[in-house]
Amino acid sequence: MSLTRFSINQATLKYSSLPEVIDAVRVIGASSIGVWRETVQELGASEVATRLADAGVRASSLCRGGFFTSPDPTAWRAALDDNRRAIEETAVIGAPALVLVTGGLPEGSRDLVGARQRVRDAIGELEADAQAAGVVLAIEALHPMYAADRAVISTLAQALDIAEQFSPAGVGVVVDTFHVWWDPELATQVARAGRGGRIASYQVCDWLTPIAADALLSRGYPGDGHIDFAAITGQVRDAGYTGDIEVEIFNQEIWDAASTVVARTVAERYESLVFPFL
Amino acid sequence: MSLTRFSINQATLKYSSLPEVIDAVRVIGASSIGVWRETVQELGASEVATRLADAGVRASSLCRGGFFTSPDPTAWRAALDDNRRAIEETAVIGAPALVLVTGGLPEGSRDLVGARQRVRDAIGELEADAQAAGVVLAIEALHPMYAADRAVISTLAQALDIAEQFSPAGVGVVVDTFHVWWDPELATQVARAGRGGRIASYQVCDWLTPIAADALLSRGYPGDGHIDFAAITGQVRDAGYTGDIEVEIFNQEIWDAASTVVARTVAERYESLVFPFL
Repeated sequence: MSLTRFSINQATLKYSSLPEVIDAVRVIGASSIGVWRETVQELGASEVATRLADAGVRASSLCRGGFFTSPDPTAWRAALDDNRRAIEETAVIGAPALVLVTGGLPEGSRDLVGARQRVRDAIGELEADAQAAGVVLAIEALHPMYAADRAVISTLAQALDIAEQFSPAGVGVVVDTFHVWWDPELATQVARAGRGGRIASYQVCDWLTPIAADALLSRGYPGDGHIDFAAITGQVRDAGYTGDIEVEIFNQEIWDAASTVVARTVAERYESLVFPFL
Repeated sequence: MSLTRFSINQATLKYSSLPEVIDAVRVIGASSIGVWRETVQELGASEVATRLADAGVRASSLCRGGFFTSPDPTAWRAALDDNRRAIEETAVIGAPALVLVTGGLPEGSRDLVGARQRVRDAIGELEADAQAAGVVLAIEALHPMYAADRAVISTLAQALDIAEQFSPAGVGVVVDTFHVWWDPELATQVARAGRGGRIASYQVCDWLTPIAADALLSRGYPGDGHIDFAAITGQVRDAGYTGDIEVEIFNQEIWDAASTVVARTVAERYESLVFPFL
């Protein structure tokens, strides 16, 4: 069945409850859900795990940990503690990976180099906990347009430069088409990630133009934008990735649509634009 | 005098006529103007040259040529012809460089590789004309958020990969802080550009957050955003660049302000944030 590896990330159905997301996933025959921490914090990780198990649905990832760039040692340590809780939650819900958004420049700071070093150091502190829990820390390179306010890790090469300092059992990377599609080094870096066993998650959504007024919401259904899903999916396949493929879309119009309609649409796009190239 | 290398790009004073821009530049004691083709096409290149000479102001660059990504041979050839005219105009106004915005993905296309190849091929066709005219084709890597609709060349490394196929007398690159500040490879690539004598233009403006509703206009005065001008200017200095430094800002509020106020502000920012690191 073609949706065996297909996952809907909760963010795609932002206004739906977990039962509604589970229903939508089951209706289309997908197999897993990318879970957000808000849900875990609301219901508790055990309860989330129970509901997923009862529905026969897996968790493909937990989103999200990270935010490691504070120059204040107390705040930085607090972020580590919070990420340790996120690692535990990831293990309890049975997801293989905790997605890390690394954090942007601290307020008033222009020191990208220092912020990037703190990301590396934080991952170094967390790696053993992750391995012990059977969880991979999945570093997500965010599009360079978020370098100031979301993530100082902007390319797959940068994410791999950090990940490769640790065991692949503890640290990997996310390949999210929206964030990396423009990168002239993409094919090279996906292959590199594959050789090292570093691809912890593959996420698909499209790049729309013009960029939305709220740049965070400028994502679209695969096929509605500029991204070549055949090419990138082929690279990820050739890199040996056999895990789940999440569709994660931040888009106000899609959030405002009925969850069943959205679920059917993403499933159709997955089947026509992604699955044939796996 | 500290503004010897300081240039105001016309785009910073979008609603001002050439005489108004010349006045603003002279009032603050700057030495050159980054000229746009709209002005050249309105007045004629010779007239622009005369007016600049009469005012004792140089042209630091002509903006802009490029748009080389059409897959239609007739349209692609027409772009070459237009760029040959732009090369002539650049020579007539006495600017050392023609800034190239390479063009985005063609309508309906998702073929980044093909579009990038056509950019390289176009520059190969134009290089001899540029050299003969004493003009450097300055490839501008645009921020990756413009990869779909403006420029398929997104990093300094990519621009250099093309430029280095040709003589530095014919092809160089632009270092524009707004477009490249986020790049983890920036220091390495600026040094590489310097070694090859490839830095044809250094442009400064800041990255503001949140990104403006019109993402093209999300630029600010140096100092108002997240960019470390000391660090990047130091890299450009150490790379041996001795040319003009243009301030080029697309920002609706700045466009709506009086040109004399804008000119004074950019001069102050240049003197405090850029000049000390040259």
